[in-house]
Amino acid sequence: MGRFILSSIIIAFCARIYPVRALDNGLALTPTMGWLHWERFTCNTDCDADPQNCISEKLYMEMADMMVKDGWKDVGYEYVCIDDCWPSVNRDAQGRLQADPKRFPGGIKKLADYIHSKGLKLGIYADVGTLTCAGYPGSFGHYETDAATFAEWGVDLLKFDGCYMPQWTLLAEGYINMSLALNKTGKSILYSCEWPLYEWQHQQPNYTAIQQTCNHWRNYADVFDSWSSITGILDWTGDHQDLLVPVAGPGGWNDPDMLVIGNFGLSWDQQVTQMSLWAIMAAPLLMSNDLRDIDPRSRALLQNLHLIAINQDPLGKQGYRVAKVNGFEVWERPLSGGKLAVAVVNRQELGGPRRFPLLLATLISWKSCCPQCNITQVTPQYQELGVQSLFTKAAIPINPTGTVMLIISPAVSPEKCKPLSRMQAKKWLHYLSKEEALDTVPTMWVKELLYQNQKRERVSL
Amino acid sequence: MGRFILSSIIIAFCARIYPVRALDNGLALTPTMGWLHWERFTCNTDCDADPQNCISEKLYMEMADMMVKDGWKDVGYEYVCIDDCWPSVNRDAQGRLQADPKRFPGGIKKLADYIHSKGLKLGIYADVGTLTCAGYPGSFGHYETDAATFAEWGVDLLKFDGCYMPQWTLLAEGYINMSLALNKTGKSILYSCEWPLYEWQHQQPNYTAIQQTCNHWRNYADVFDSWSSITGILDWTGDHQDLLVPVAGPGGWNDPDMLVIGNFGLSWDQQVTQMSLWAIMAAPLLMSNDLRDIDPRSRALLQNLHLIAINQDPLGKQGYRVAKVNGFEVWERPLSGGKLAVAVVNRQELGGPRRFPLLLATLISWKSCCPQCNITQVTPQYQELGVQSLFTKAAIPINPTGTVMLIISPAVSPEKCKPLSRMQAKKWLHYLSKEEALDTVPTMWVKELLYQNQKRERVSL
Repeated sequence: MGRFILSSIIIAFCARIYPVRALDNGLALTPTMGWLHWERFTCNTDCDADPQNCISEKLYMEMADMMVKDGWKDVGYEYVCIDDCWPSVNRDAQGRLQADPKRFPGGIKKLADYIHSKGLKLGIYADVGTLTCAGYPGSFGHYETDAATFAEWGVDLLKFDGCYMPQWTLLAEGYINMSLALNKTGKSILYSCEWPLYEWQHQQPNYTAIQQTCNHWRNYADVFDSWSSITGILDWTGDHQDLLVPVAGPGGWNDPDMLVIGNFGLSWDQQVTQMSLWAIMAAPLLMSNDLRDIDPRSRALLQNLHLIAINQDPLGKQGYRVAKVNGFEVWERPLSGGKLAVAVVNRQELGGPRRFPLLLATLISWKSCCPQCNITQVTPQYQELGVQSLFTKAAIPINPTGTVMLIISPAVSPEKCKPLSRMQAKKWLHYLSKEEALDTVPTMWVKELLYQNQKRERVSL
Repeated sequence: MGRFILSSIIIAFCARIYPVRALDNGLALTPTMGWLHWERFTCNTDCDADPQNCISEKLYMEMADMMVKDGWKDVGYEYVCIDDCWPSVNRDAQGRLQADPKRFPGGIKKLADYIHSKGLKLGIYADVGTLTCAGYPGSFGHYETDAATFAEWGVDLLKFDGCYMPQWTLLAEGYINMSLALNKTGKSILYSCEWPLYEWQHQQPNYTAIQQTCNHWRNYADVFDSWSSITGILDWTGDHQDLLVPVAGPGGWNDPDMLVIGNFGLSWDQQVTQMSLWAIMAAPLLMSNDLRDIDPRSRALLQNLHLIAINQDPLGKQGYRVAKVNGFEVWERPLSGGKLAVAVVNRQELGGPRRFPLLLATLISWKSCCPQCNITQVTPQYQELGVQSLFTKAAIPINPTGTVMLIISPAVSPEKCKPLSRMQAKKWLHYLSKEEALDTVPTMWVKELLYQNQKRERVSL
């Protein structure tokens, strides 16, 4: 074991002297799409009592079957991912990880072959420390061995957890060493890290290093099957966006954790919000649900091609929270071709649908609609809203805890657009201040939004 | 104004010297059922911009129409209740409350006539203090006038809020005086109080006095359209049940606030939980939703006759939380005819359905199944589970945030049943401790449950 640690440290040391610019393994050029067992199936290992839902090769084979049969593969979901609790409690005689023989009688290689025969890819789970979070063998001191084992089995993705690290100061080194070990195998293995999540407990992580090491990385707590979990993740991400957004892009993504759509804890509107905002955040779309038994409406939402196109947009820019105003949140994501995705969330957990003023001039990316644009509503229902101008007045109803997602496509090349003149802006504010401009929309919000743009020096009043 | 206060104080004084045993107005012999506007329609007074959803006579007339048309009335929903924001901002020349003339052009009396013509009853809202919570005129100093006005209009229920009381020490007196004023009108006006909710902010309320004064009373914060609101209410109620359960009964009920089923914030399983637990708690069933636009599944749940029968059981005993064990909560409610309702909530917001050990001997009301009983599952699906004994082993799956409700009917008269002998109980624990007894059920839970019964000296081991 000592030899492994020593060589790992030497490799880490070299990596620090000659840093790579980004993780250049050709993977995750758009956010990963697939299925991951944890949130829905956790560490259920009792196959005698619960053979349908225990962590076993049967579970992943059935999910792979469903992914092909029910159109998941066709819309882009590709990785079938194992999480914790798959291994035997002991390594084999050669010190290699091995699957629990009772629950994975065919072994992981045979499972990978099955998954590949379906045109899908297999993800596996390990841990940078001495034990996995659920207490199975960790990879500490075994990074090269384990990377080689996963490569030999034909594994396509590794989720690398961060429990039981002997010293937290070794986190960075451990994650970097496993990255190097994976690269050394010569196989394309997508590398999903939890490095920042564990480092935040002690200090602000070095996101440049993380971006150079991982294909995506978890920043914040595990997702649960509840609205408070979803809002917790959104709030944290919005609050840290200045740090997070710049480091995301093709090859490396912030990972807000699994989609829990199709389970038990989210209302319909809350499911729409998760799917819409995960698209805005350029998040990996890793569903954790039971594809054998899922509500048709949830399935249609997860397979919504408009939302998937936003998530997978080739420009690869993560969206950001523009404004929190009067119980609404506005998020934007710049898309390829000068387009813009705008998501408005009604965060009020009371009352009926509330109308949000769709005022394009208030968006940070107002140029997408200057002088005109086409607007399409994607959620909760698809609806063409036609050609609009910067000064269109409209109020879109949004359900409590729900989200309206719009795509704004420039009607003329945005390069030809001139910024608002001081005079134009003043005139427009005056127009808005008249009661008839927007039925129930307090002009205060509008002023607040415009003020935020002013601060950003996009609109010069 | 001074004369009113003086006479009120004298009346309150007399009431204290000669206390009545309970509020004896013949009303609310079972928990009130109906519809109340607040959670869904709040204080939306902008009828120009939002004529469908603003607080206006039209809203209540349409709800009344729907209550008759869609079977609500047939299953027992009877009261159509106005909440805050109905009045004009000024009293009339005679000092009487008056409805906003623009939104209630026909006035409340005409609205009451309309509601009565449908075979339904009308509820109205006022406040014990100087202003309502939304800032409309309060009844402080006008209790007799307002009671007389409501009676004259033909109002059938008064929800009496507790904002803007000049001094909190006057709360009790204010609520008692309005109760007396309502009685004095000679009309049957159901009296819904928020007295304990406001008194808890200062001291533990006197529930004996409250029970003698009100037909139901709010104890805890307003309900919102979210699971965290529902669990907050359940937790608070369970934590204070020793105080709350004894004072509930025919004529007077603890009010955990409105049903928000059919809105935006609860998943299906969470809706099942609210309806089931509101039945267990013998809570008023006051829906706040849009009956003109409600999901058929939510409607069926609100109209579930088995749940309504539990809620309206003539014995009138409120249920209580029996156990919190391993992420499950067990609630029981004794019903007429020796029957028992048992609700088991899966409070874990993670994973898939989990199996709870149905072990009748662990219930406080184990006698309902001694020696045998019929068990019917009411939610989430109706299912006859047949004749069972105290020693039946079974594990019922419960979805995360969902509830399974069972009705246990004695198969022989419970009076003939002998308590468990020390020997029997020991034998049974030994049986449970063997692995095969209950597939995945840790015997620890069972021991914990039995221990709780021991403490209550119902089962003597």
